[in-house]
Amino acid sequence: MAHVCKIINGKGLAEDIQTNLAKKISNFRVKPKLAVILVGHDPRSEIYIEFKKKACEEVGIDVKTIEFEDNIKQVRLERTIDELNNDEDVHGILVQLPLPKQIDEKKIIELINPMKDVDGFHPINIGRIMGNIETGLTPATPKGIMRIIDSIGHELEGKNVVVVGSGYLVGRPMLGLLLNRKATVTVCHQSTKEIEDFTLNADVLVVGVGKPGLITKDMVKKNAVVIDAGIATVENKVVGDIDFDEICKVAQYVTPTPGGVGPMTIAMLLENTWQAMRMQHGYKDY
Amino acid sequence: MAHVCKIINGKGLAEDIQTNLAKKISNFRVKPKLAVILVGHDPRSEIYIEFKKKACEEVGIDVKTIEFEDNIKQVRLERTIDELNNDEDVHGILVQLPLPKQIDEKKIIELINPMKDVDGFHPINIGRIMGNIETGLTPATPKGIMRIIDSIGHELEGKNVVVVGSGYLVGRPMLGLLLNRKATVTVCHQSTKEIEDFTLNADVLVVGVGKPGLITKDMVKKNAVVIDAGIATVENKVVGDIDFDEICKVAQYVTPTPGGVGPMTIAMLLENTWQAMRMQHGYKDY
Repeated sequence: MAHVCKIINGKGLAEDIQTNLAKKISNFRVKPKLAVILVGHDPRSEIYIEFKKKACEEVGIDVKTIEFEDNIKQVRLERTIDELNNDEDVHGILVQLPLPKQIDEKKIIELINPMKDVDGFHPINIGRIMGNIETGLTPATPKGIMRIIDSIGHELEGKNVVVVGSGYLVGRPMLGLLLNRKATVTVCHQSTKEIEDFTLNADVLVVGVGKPGLITKDMVKKNAVVIDAGIATVENKVVGDIDFDEICKVAQYVTPTPGGVGPMTIAMLLENTWQAMRMQHGYKDY
Repeated sequence: MAHVCKIINGKGLAEDIQTNLAKKISNFRVKPKLAVILVGHDPRSEIYIEFKKKACEEVGIDVKTIEFEDNIKQVRLERTIDELNNDEDVHGILVQLPLPKQIDEKKIIELINPMKDVDGFHPINIGRIMGNIETGLTPATPKGIMRIIDSIGHELEGKNVVVVGSGYLVGRPMLGLLLNRKATVTVCHQSTKEIEDFTLNADVLVVGVGKPGLITKDMVKKNAVVIDAGIATVENKVVGDIDFDEICKVAQYVTPTPGGVGPMTIAMLLENTWQAMRMQHGYKDY
């Protein structure tokens, strides 16, 4: 029998979530408002912000964009966070990363009110995930990946999950979410000598490095679920970390790029903004 | 040539740390003070508290013990935490776990001022570790294990480290510390089907489950470093998770129980109390 690989439609999933969210937002008395801080003119950051703003608009989230030049001082940025924390009309604060070198990025993130931390990068939000308290705000990409895995009805308990990439925004929060579901989890990264020794045993493989072609067919277990959260641009085309066409020949499920994890990341940011607003108004259901 | 396995002297290491700490404390104008909350009469908790109090006394840390009956109400415990947070003379707060069932343990931990959280279990302290910010308070057992690994001069970058046990107090914080050192990390636990598939590839094996005999010789890679953080009582003897005598025949380094991780956990608690006091007095070196 020929091998059948299912391509996960992240874009479709995200659209369903956004349609549902737009309905909830239009039925509620308060319109969520997201403050977006963009520092400098990194073309990639500018593109991401445009995507996020457009998506917010579509579901009915107000966006207030605050732009700064590259040479902004730490204290100025801190003051802005402080103002946004105290602004009752602002429910979510998103600081587009990376920030310029003179800025202490981690300090800025810690200053954001955890209830407004829609990126979920505040240590208290990360720490809660590690403590299996998933009632706070969860980083959008890992949250989107969990939703993708759930969408295919994949039970994680006892499964061997390998995460390639140990970054603060994807790999590390992913870990906590996977442990909360009782998966056996391995994290590989730049310093791992033979990544394939690990990936070949993965029932579920999550990759988020940003290095096109990193994961090839011979590194993937037969009938694995392969989630590609990598993103890079090659010859003006957006590509992930996996050798998609070839991996389709062995995997059972695989996410495409574009149209896989990316749209889900945006959908989860919107959901987090809604959740932040609801929390700030004392609601416990989102 | 006969196999030589080195037994790591955790007790000796801890004693050196405590001697050094006692000197620093006696030379400083403020005596650190630790508040210990003990709820109920769990015999194991009572023994642990006695160990901790004795060690504090030896290095010159004052201890204030607050005892409650098993039926204490959440609100009463919360009020006590609040009082201790606001008491300038108290530098560290330790709530002996586990707490009785009617108590929301995670909520109690989140109420502790992170600067006084000498157990390092507050989500913000865990989250900082995950974000590679190790300037806060680090959970004592994982911190002690890192110190043990350092004591044998073992470089972790690129090494394959397997942690057995995904608990909130040992396994999970351990993960962050190991990733910060660029180890490839796998976490196994109750739901892992074939633990030996993972442990057999571990250059460093960290076990913290509390199940005597869990790790046998045939599950350990030749010349591995084996750190046993498990603790249980069998026939009135304190034992770890590993089959110590047999594992000595294959491992390069191994920690004994008692005398391995246990004393280091206590030493790290003392160090954390000193660090908490120093932080509260505005010092950045501990």
